[in-house]
Amino acid sequence: MFSIRPPAPLPGLQACIDGKTKPPGSLGQLERLARQIGQVRQTLTPRLGEPQLLIFAGDHGAARAGVSAYPQDVTWQMVENFLAGGAAINVFSRHNNLRLQVIDAGVAHDFGVRPGLVDAKIAFGTQNYLERPAMTAAECQLAIERGAAIVRQLAERGVQVVGFGEMGIGNTAAASLLTQHFTTTPLAECVGRGTGLDDAGLARKKDLLARAAARANLPAHAEPLRVLAEFGGFEIAMLCGALLAGAEAGLLLLIDGFIVTAAVLVAIALAPAVRDYCVFCHRSAEPGHLAQLRALDAEPLLDLGLRLGEGTGVALAWPLVRAAAAFLDEMASFASAGVSERL
Amino acid sequence: MFSIRPPAPLPGLQACIDGKTKPPGSLGQLERLARQIGQVRQTLTPRLGEPQLLIFAGDHGAARAGVSAYPQDVTWQMVENFLAGGAAINVFSRHNNLRLQVIDAGVAHDFGVRPGLVDAKIAFGTQNYLERPAMTAAECQLAIERGAAIVRQLAERGVQVVGFGEMGIGNTAAASLLTQHFTTTPLAECVGRGTGLDDAGLARKKDLLARAAARANLPAHAEPLRVLAEFGGFEIAMLCGALLAGAEAGLLLLIDGFIVTAAVLVAIALAPAVRDYCVFCHRSAEPGHLAQLRALDAEPLLDLGLRLGEGTGVALAWPLVRAAAAFLDEMASFASAGVSERL
Repeated sequence: MFSIRPPAPLPGLQACIDGKTKPPGSLGQLERLARQIGQVRQTLTPRLGEPQLLIFAGDHGAARAGVSAYPQDVTWQMVENFLAGGAAINVFSRHNNLRLQVIDAGVAHDFGVRPGLVDAKIAFGTQNYLERPAMTAAECQLAIERGAAIVRQLAERGVQVVGFGEMGIGNTAAASLLTQHFTTTPLAECVGRGTGLDDAGLARKKDLLARAAARANLPAHAEPLRVLAEFGGFEIAMLCGALLAGAEAGLLLLIDGFIVTAAVLVAIALAPAVRDYCVFCHRSAEPGHLAQLRALDAEPLLDLGLRLGEGTGVALAWPLVRAAAAFLDEMASFASAGVSERL
Repeated sequence: MFSIRPPAPLPGLQACIDGKTKPPGSLGQLERLARQIGQVRQTLTPRLGEPQLLIFAGDHGAARAGVSAYPQDVTWQMVENFLAGGAAINVFSRHNNLRLQVIDAGVAHDFGVRPGLVDAKIAFGTQNYLERPAMTAAECQLAIERGAAIVRQLAERGVQVVGFGEMGIGNTAAASLLTQHFTTTPLAECVGRGTGLDDAGLARKKDLLARAAARANLPAHAEPLRVLAEFGGFEIAMLCGALLAGAEAGLLLLIDGFIVTAAVLVAIALAPAVRDYCVFCHRSAEPGHLAQLRALDAEPLLDLGLRLGEGTGVALAWPLVRAAAAFLDEMASFASAGVSERL
């Protein structure tokens, strides 16, 4: 379905980085990021242009069972907030020059035809995975195809960098179930407070998710898409397709926190080379994100204790990605600037 | 000389942050930063404008004794690189919209009259603190006054945020000596590889600095300016004056890494309330920075393993500061956006 290969080696890349007017290695993690950007884009002079941030929104049948501190209506209300420009992600995208697109992957609300909202709705929310699979195999496939189609269009328009965010009350719960499966981490370590459950709420969430995992009873080597269909949600499936298409097109993929990284886990289970295209933007305060980052051997750019989602980690980290590309492209070399090298 | 008071409490600040459309606390460290910005600028709608980044450059008499991996000429050569726009700090400032000003605080080089370079030169480098104090009390005082005057002019022009960077071959060594004094940390924990000393070079640097500390033989409660004059450099003294004037004017002060934080230690020894105006932009890979941050109970915004100086940590962290101010100013509240609050 997708043909994804690791980026080819780029001769001269390390020498170019080491020749810049700075002590070798002194830009730390930005030097590793510059290497990744150079490789993914296959150039020593990357000019990434404006990134496109995609926010996939969806609802979860299990939300009504009490896995979130907020009512399910907050999903569509926050979509309205995105469209009105008042959410954190709007503010951060405006200031850091990211273009924002909101996609209805499966919100349990009729928005009608709305300028600025992409209607890719699969259904009015997933099924409740406490009782049955969150989606059918056909729905899961459709969500992947729709996510992929959105990113392919961006690639055709010349977009080089795509960031990924999400909105969906209850989606940390689905992400926890996916994370325990794909990282083989005990479920309890993958479950957190989400938007802010208290101790009793957290205990209830852990109990509900243990029941969901027991019901699904997936073998360790279940087909990745079967696992995804069991737990959902539509926004995670659409993210998965978008990531696969982005890697196939050789785009740089900016990964937000816990939920988006759950989609990365599914995508990598399907095509391991997706990993090479991913920039992990921040370390979430949601504990399951640690298990994900460990499994992916990922070192995020920011560690600010964020746990908001929406793509806020992407929008905040984007200036660092741009800076890494710019130092590769624009900085003087010792030779060109006439600066003495070390003794 | 300076009248510096803590910012006044600002009624309604926490309620304003908690009313934004996000789970309480979900923006993590940015929420604490937004509180600080609101307090320092005394407003719930901060609009910080463009920050001014000041790079103070100076040479160190001890550099010729072998405390750096690079020859002393690199100080003036890098100043030329700044003026030509080819250094890392130029690239990052351009992309993140910081205005850059380079100040000759005491470089051992005659630049002549140069557009873009502020001539505040105290002398052609400090004296060698292995033999005598790096500067006289009068030179130290003059450097502080010149640094203060530069920031006072900026405040009069309406600048609200000032970032601080530096350049000076050998200045991690001076910063180590200041840090061991003001944080009462063992000298060995305050000394690192700077621009990239090997093991033998690091051992030599530690030995030289232990001899310098023994020669100066300062009592624990020596006057802060006497300590500063003993070890230098001119760029650190000018930074100290600039920080004091900035806090006095109620500006937000963006602090880079190890050397700028050494100047912060001196300024805080003179006027403790300076601390309230400081935003610590990044955690340097230079080990002495840890001792400084611990002593200041500071939690930096970035942790990217940078060890370049120049103000690069400031330029890279500025978008996060701007984001914190913007969410306070621009984000919708639950009430204004019609979003349900938690169950």
